[in-house]
Amino acid sequence: MKKKIVILPGDGIGKEVTACGKKVLEQVAECFGHQFSFDYATIGHEAIEATGTPLPDASLEKMKNCDAVLFGAVGHPKYDNDPSAKVRPEQGLLKMRKELGLYANLRPIKLFDELLGASSIKPEILKGADILFFRELTGDVYFGERGRKDEGKTAYDTMIYSRYEVERIAHKAFKAALTRGKKVTSVDKANVLESSRLWREVVQDVARQYPDVEVEHMFVDAAAMKLIQNPRGFDVVVTGNLFGDILTDEASQIAGSMGMLASASIGDTVGLYEPIHGSAHDITGKGIANPLASILSAALLLDISFGLKEESETVIKAVEKTLREGYRTRDIADATTAHEKI
Amino acid sequence: MKKKIVILPGDGIGKEVTACGKKVLEQVAECFGHQFSFDYATIGHEAIEATGTPLPDASLEKMKNCDAVLFGAVGHPKYDNDPSAKVRPEQGLLKMRKELGLYANLRPIKLFDELLGASSIKPEILKGADILFFRELTGDVYFGERGRKDEGKTAYDTMIYSRYEVERIAHKAFKAALTRGKKVTSVDKANVLESSRLWREVVQDVARQYPDVEVEHMFVDAAAMKLIQNPRGFDVVVTGNLFGDILTDEASQIAGSMGMLASASIGDTVGLYEPIHGSAHDITGKGIANPLASILSAALLLDISFGLKEESETVIKAVEKTLREGYRTRDIADATTAHEKI
Ligand SMILES: CC(C)[C@H](C(=O)O)[C@@H](O)C(=O)O
Ligand SMILES: CC(C)[C@H](C(=O)O)[C@@H](O)C(=O)O
Repeated sequence: MKKKIVILPGDGIGKEVTACGKKVLEQVAECFGHQFSFDYATIGHEAIEATGTPLPDASLEKMKNCDAVLFGAVGHPKYDNDPSAKVRPEQGLLKMRKELGLYANLRPIKLFDELLGASSIKPEILKGADILFFRELTGDVYFGERGRKDEGKTAYDTMIYSRYEVERIAHKAFKAALTRGKKVTSVDKANVLESSRLWREVVQDVARQYPDVEVEHMFVDAAAMKLIQNPRGFDVVVTGNLFGDILTDEASQIAGSMGMLASASIGDTVGLYEPIHGSAHDITGKGIANPLASILSAALLLDISFGLKEESETVIKAVEKTLREGYRTRDIADATTAHEKI
Repeated sequence: MKKKIVILPGDGIGKEVTACGKKVLEQVAECFGHQFSFDYATIGHEAIEATGTPLPDASLEKMKNCDAVLFGAVGHPKYDNDPSAKVRPEQGLLKMRKELGLYANLRPIKLFDELLGASSIKPEILKGADILFFRELTGDVYFGERGRKDEGKTAYDTMIYSRYEVERIAHKAFKAALTRGKKVTSVDKANVLESSRLWREVVQDVARQYPDVEVEHMFVDAAAMKLIQNPRGFDVVVTGNLFGDILTDEASQIAGSMGMLASASIGDTVGLYEPIHGSAHDITGKGIANPLASILSAALLLDISFGLKEESETVIKAVEKTLREGYRTRDIADATTAHEKI
């Protein structure tokens, strides 16, 4: 198989971890006789420094003309502490998601048996938990109109969803549920928000087309609680952009660490694969970042974008073997000692 | 001391638990020689059934003319599954918060030693955790303009904050921090949202007036993760209405169960005290609801609205003693068996 992959390292530990993800892809190509060619593109703080914009057109062009993207992370503390900054690394990420039509962000949450001790949650609560999140990625308060009024003294953002946006992600979630535990939990805040009431209406409509899938509607506050209380109660979760952002970071504790979690962003065109962790400037350059989320992102890429199931499984098995042999980054060392250091 | 208390049972288990909270207040009055008089008012589903509106004017009047309110919960599954319902129990709750100017919702999260086993989180991670949340309660996407467009196919809500709203709750949080661990964590999503950037600006300004308090800014996704990973890393947390709703429900797992968590809503006029749990119709009328959140709400009421520290402590000690003697509702039985039933 001949494929073109764009590597988008981005900021902070993004560079370190995508380097590992790329190595694994190269190894897979060699072992299985594929031809993967690699190209690099810039995004985020690095791109701002070089070109003044967080997502140069050249990067977007490259991504539009390749078979899959392996992405690292964006972000820089400089902007975080300066609420008045006009240009920000995150704008590059959001623009990329929108322009590439990456509306469905799949975040599988599964604990490797070897890491049962690494989580702050009790092993007997975690064992067997296996959740697949579908986070909507190109709508919601991330992309609604925002601004200031009253001479800058008031600020607003618009949480907004249209039927078709909810429909397409709901279909993806229900289809996935058919191949798994046959249950979809849709998360919203329909007791307060109009956009959530639309969300719930549409999910109810879509659900009727999948009579074999059990559907459950849950308020986001209850979901944040139940994820920790009984993670095995979830199979497929579908939710909006903001709630998905919060809940999947929280759910990373089910997998022991954020450093273990890969994600796939798919939609109209090319697929993009990235760790759910961020740029983590506090540990950048120290050689302690966990590369497994990027390596597992590469496994998702092989599976979803290239249909290479065996290759993908081989990568996952290699990760398992490495963990079984006792190799650990700091974030997945035993939780009772590790949490002191974070 | 002579005081007028309004009991607002609301829906579902709200009735059962406020009955217990009231009993405790009566007992305190008797033991300490106070005169507490009680009056009842309606809200929520019950009020809709009786009067067509979720918060009758009569209820509001009573609350405006008393010294403190003990509230239960609102909500009914009937509305949850009907996104098109025009009148909803929750509207009564939101209107009450707004009309009474209850802009600061204090949610103390502390684990009773006896309940170390009841949480899904490892005891060694939890031990010593003690967090005080300040959730802003009368702004944000809860009260911004909302509606439909495109013939109902698009729905929106407005997330909105003004400087003065952030200032007043930030001051409350920093003042509280001075009497505790001297650290405030402000939670927002300033890397994406304009309302969060305003939030961060204002908290930075207010922080300068409290040089003895350490201030930390955290994105809501990171906060959702870190709360579970290392709850001892938090002292006072201040955040907006929506993020506070999600994070405090999640944090209930730190206290073993939502059934343990009390909250105080304060602001311009009278103080209102309520469990953070909801109406829980699935367990209503079964006699299994945990009354401790309402009883601990009564303790907060004695302390904050009446300044009766000793009385408040006595109630808390009684709760401790009850737990020490081994009494448990189902939600705080040992987590490894209890989570099966939820
Ligand atoms: C960096 C940030 C804008 C981003 C998001 O909120 O979507 C990140 O948290 C993520 O989850 O990919
Ligand atoms: C019932 C609901 C509207 C309410 C809220 O979201 O504020 C509840 O979850 C709470 O936390 O008090």
